[in-house]
Amino acid sequence: MSQSIIVLAGGDNSLWPDKEVFNQASHIIGVDRGSLEGLRQGLSIDVAVGDFDSLTKEELDYVKQQVPLVKQYPAEKDETDTEIGISVASQLSDEASIILVGGTGGRLDHFLANLWLPFQSRFNHLTSRLIIKDNQNTIAYFLPGDYTIEKEPDKKYLAFVCLTPMTHLSLHDTKYPLDDIEVEVPISYASNEFIGDTAHFSFSSGLMCVIQSKDK
Amino acid sequence: MSQSIIVLAGGDNSLWPDKEVFNQASHIIGVDRGSLEGLRQGLSIDVAVGDFDSLTKEELDYVKQQVPLVKQYPAEKDETDTEIGISVASQLSDEASIILVGGTGGRLDHFLANLWLPFQSRFNHLTSRLIIKDNQNTIAYFLPGDYTIEKEPDKKYLAFVCLTPMTHLSLHDTKYPLDDIEVEVPISYASNEFIGDTAHFSFSSGLMCVIQSKDK
Repeated sequence: MSQSIIVLAGGDNSLWPDKEVFNQASHIIGVDRGSLEGLRQGLSIDVAVGDFDSLTKEELDYVKQQVPLVKQYPAEKDETDTEIGISVASQLSDEASIILVGGTGGRLDHFLANLWLPFQSRFNHLTSRLIIKDNQNTIAYFLPGDYTIEKEPDKKYLAFVCLTPMTHLSLHDTKYPLDDIEVEVPISYASNEFIGDTAHFSFSSGLMCVIQSKDK
Repeated sequence: MSQSIIVLAGGDNSLWPDKEVFNQASHIIGVDRGSLEGLRQGLSIDVAVGDFDSLTKEELDYVKQQVPLVKQYPAEKDETDTEIGISVASQLSDEASIILVGGTGGRLDHFLANLWLPFQSRFNHLTSRLIIKDNQNTIAYFLPGDYTIEKEPDKKYLAFVCLTPMTHLSLHDTKYPLDDIEVEVPISYASNEFIGDTAHFSFSSGLMCVIQSKDK
């Protein structure tokens, strides 16, 4: 498995994925309140970023004591704290997966801003490395091409989520295959399933996001 | 306030909005497991739809005893249970708001399928009537035009979520205004705020979704 860096945002920690994901990461970057929650859960946070306006002075002091590098930014800035976290992650490695945790649930305007990060021109080059994970979902992104993906052992469902219109979309080795269709509007082809350990898909234009998920 | 019909899907009931929303509805349509959860929470369900494959035989018998009209469909069909629920709601009234509850959280492939319902040509005409609600978020949709929207008293944040590219977007009477901009990719302008009781916005092409939200 390739190296991974976790960007830990401040979303509800009851939605975090399995500890295993944290154990396998080379670095954990805490985003604002995510830094504090990470420390409270016994994680070793390498860098903390944000305006920290969701923390009390005592909480921020604690983060500063425990985290080797704290980058504090003004509250009214052009980037969100999560965007800064992703940028810092991309500076640590040119290859590692960047796994956003704590970026789902709660406020849906935040979740959608996270879902659409790969549309931002400065993050385009991270598209194939960005993953969003919680306790029921793994979201990965794909630019036009031909792909084989592997089933995650703990997930049941496989969704092909067209974030844009899309041309020549085909799905193979899935319960509900598709053959060379045109997709005119964003659509979530939910509740598909692997029929073996891998599935294949291809498309010629657009941005695809694949979600493997399970019921609670 | 205009009449409303609730479509109650099977999502986690800890995310349901205030009881008030149910009290004000003229009808409640239970979707699959949502019917059972609704009954368990003391709601009066008028119609139950779905394949009901998430219910045991005893649970389904209970739903059939308690709900005046139960429409059972085969599991492998072209529409999702939620889509059938929305269709049934649209047949009950030409004017009422259709509020989808239980359609957020959990599996994100399901949430995105719900978010994008107005893109489906058969639901286009419901765009301005469809609302998705949970305990932190209200999502409403807008076709090109000029709008005044009212602040919900319990919400703090106001997000303009461009589901498509968009032309001539302007936001007025908001903490962060925008003047006649072009939006090239889907983007969630999160964490804006009302500065009074109303805000104004306009755009010439695209599909807008406005999310009022609050922290937990």
